[in-house]
Amino acid sequence: MPRPIQAVISTQAMAHNLAQVQERIRTLQSQIAASVASQEKTLSCLPSVKAFAVIKANAYGHGTLNALKGFAQADGLGMIDIADAVLCRDNGWTKPILLLEGFFHAEDIEVLQHYHITTAIHSRYQLELLQQAKSVGKPIDVMMKFNTGMNRLGFKSYQALDILTDLKHLQVQGIVGRIGCMSHFANADLDQDYVVQAAEDILGVKHLFTDGPLSICNSAASVRYPQLTLQHHENWVRPGICLYGSVPFDTTPIALTAEGNITATASVIDLPDVQFQPTMTLIADIIAVQDIKAGDSVGYGSTFTADKPMRVAVIACGYADGYPRSAPFGTPVTVDGVPAHVVGRVSMDMMNIDISHIPSAGIGSKVVLWGKGGPSIDEVADKAGRIGYEMMCNLARRVPLKVV
Amino acid sequence: MPRPIQAVISTQAMAHNLAQVQERIRTLQSQIAASVASQEKTLSCLPSVKAFAVIKANAYGHGTLNALKGFAQADGLGMIDIADAVLCRDNGWTKPILLLEGFFHAEDIEVLQHYHITTAIHSRYQLELLQQAKSVGKPIDVMMKFNTGMNRLGFKSYQALDILTDLKHLQVQGIVGRIGCMSHFANADLDQDYVVQAAEDILGVKHLFTDGPLSICNSAASVRYPQLTLQHHENWVRPGICLYGSVPFDTTPIALTAEGNITATASVIDLPDVQFQPTMTLIADIIAVQDIKAGDSVGYGSTFTADKPMRVAVIACGYADGYPRSAPFGTPVTVDGVPAHVVGRVSMDMMNIDISHIPSAGIGSKVVLWGKGGPSIDEVADKAGRIGYEMMCNLARRVPLKVV
Repeated sequence: MPRPIQAVISTQAMAHNLAQVQERIRTLQSQIAASVASQEKTLSCLPSVKAFAVIKANAYGHGTLNALKGFAQADGLGMIDIADAVLCRDNGWTKPILLLEGFFHAEDIEVLQHYHITTAIHSRYQLELLQQAKSVGKPIDVMMKFNTGMNRLGFKSYQALDILTDLKHLQVQGIVGRIGCMSHFANADLDQDYVVQAAEDILGVKHLFTDGPLSICNSAASVRYPQLTLQHHENWVRPGICLYGSVPFDTTPIALTAEGNITATASVIDLPDVQFQPTMTLIADIIAVQDIKAGDSVGYGSTFTADKPMRVAVIACGYADGYPRSAPFGTPVTVDGVPAHVVGRVSMDMMNIDISHIPSAGIGSKVVLWGKGGPSIDEVADKAGRIGYEMMCNLARRVPLKVV
Repeated sequence: MPRPIQAVISTQAMAHNLAQVQERIRTLQSQIAASVASQEKTLSCLPSVKAFAVIKANAYGHGTLNALKGFAQADGLGMIDIADAVLCRDNGWTKPILLLEGFFHAEDIEVLQHYHITTAIHSRYQLELLQQAKSVGKPIDVMMKFNTGMNRLGFKSYQALDILTDLKHLQVQGIVGRIGCMSHFANADLDQDYVVQAAEDILGVKHLFTDGPLSICNSAASVRYPQLTLQHHENWVRPGICLYGSVPFDTTPIALTAEGNITATASVIDLPDVQFQPTMTLIADIIAVQDIKAGDSVGYGSTFTADKPMRVAVIACGYADGYPRSAPFGTPVTVDGVPAHVVGRVSMDMMNIDISHIPSAGIGSKVVLWGKGGPSIDEVADKAGRIGYEMMCNLARRVPLKVV
């Protein structure tokens, strides 16, 4: 039998979180629309807003196929690895799939055609590979990716016409299908000035993309700047981390005045708290108990020394399972539902907690490291100087996933 | 095709590192023996010293089966997961296997018998499970584990006789085979006073284990306190991290006066530098290049702003691959053999480096994040506030391993 550690994955919580995001966007949009109408402006109708559920990195550690089940109601899926895209198609996913970084190799083009996978185009070399491709197979839908200050992937907006001309040429040849545009904000969670400028940048070129969608909002942007989800005739948001119950950003909507028809201000927006549920719960058993006396130390480097007699439990979880080694003294856990905390340094396969106040706890007791019934992953991440995303992704292969 | 990232695993480097450890221990032992002889004391003969190569946590991220090949010359293997032990047996490993944390469930006992796996016994509940076991199958070799100040797993030395009596009773019944003893130091790399005390503690009970081996030295202890490898009639060291080319501890041998015949002092010990080789090399391609101007920022949170025009490359590696998100500005990499460094925040699937000084670098250039031809994993870990062990173990499943 495996070591007594497991990550419980809740596809129901995934579905719930997706529904929360969709509902929140709809509510915000209605409020904006109402506000615009009250100002006697015409809003013909709300544009279609769809969501790519982002499932890159093995669905943030949750397992790609589990995510396929949890996000069955998403309008599309966004990911990085072409093999994951094929896996989703092979397991029955028929709705759109977007490769967020696009393809990397000439050999990938046939796969995109065969499996009907939409690709980001962020660099001229991808365009050149498409130009060398044969037109056999179905046309490939593409999203031209713009660099709006992240300076990671994408073209500058002044290159839009130039690249689009080439893409339209490929469209005529039957290599390329629909042509949309996308961007990724560097600071959607923090810096309003940045978002205004980045949004103006991409909204200034969106009119060129008459037949394809626009996609600019990640989790933070879709929740904080809902006005952006009203742009263009077809708008796709790309929620990621919040689908997994982690919300490390402020969820207060912000008024944004950018190029476009949006005139709503923050004052008109009123939302109930969003209730995201944890989708991953990391649980390990107590495998040993040590009764120590004042002056005894615990763990590598003897970083913790007891100042009184204590009962210390050893848990079958360490940094090689993905728990952060940097989690300091005091990082919260729960033991059979009772709060407790880490003592001593987290080692590779084990860690220690203080159970002096829980006499009923002993070998076999269940300890929740994060998730349902325990501390939130963001709380643990915060203590450890990390972020929830990173800890989910770093969950080790050796930790069995139990899907509920 | 997969994203352009891979971890190159060198089984030859693994074999080399194991040979280095074995050679180093032999050299130190000879020097100690010579010293003892020169002091006209009698040293009948050097005891047998064997090495359990530690391959827990998927062989520190290298792949269990790759480790099986790399450490073919080890005398035994040490690990945590019983499934890994079975995997090794199924793939032809016939020499000893030690489960360092022992077994966890009653169901495991049959597997230990069937596959001839040695188990640590660190808690009374394991003893009780053995007492309830049937005597069918071969006797199970055990190592009684002592807690010498780590306060993690193990019995206190005053419990030795008590537990040993129970184990010998099981031996008579044919449930238990050889009975050895082991311990794990909390501070082998740092604190000499601690090691003296811990060593005295376990050396004080070793005489009780007449038919089984003694195992107390991990990587750090076997290199720093070679005298300890001379104790008992059969001594097993348990090198771990240094087998993978990471040496985050001081390798200067230290004189240790503990109970026993060891009288050598540091002054007689003279060793050439140990040359460990990296066993894991993480390589990713440049997938985009951005020419940025003074005042432009890079990455999430805009944590880096250029003060002059720069050429910034995006690499297909992020924290979801196991590269530490905490790696700051200046963390070293090499690009086609030329040193360069990280700029901006490491994101989930990508990171940025400055290639202003490498005009030949472009899309497709190979970037070594750590390992052969690049910075050492310890150097990167140090910058990122982590340790090499952790980064190896956290290498993500999605990174293809290429074995050389």
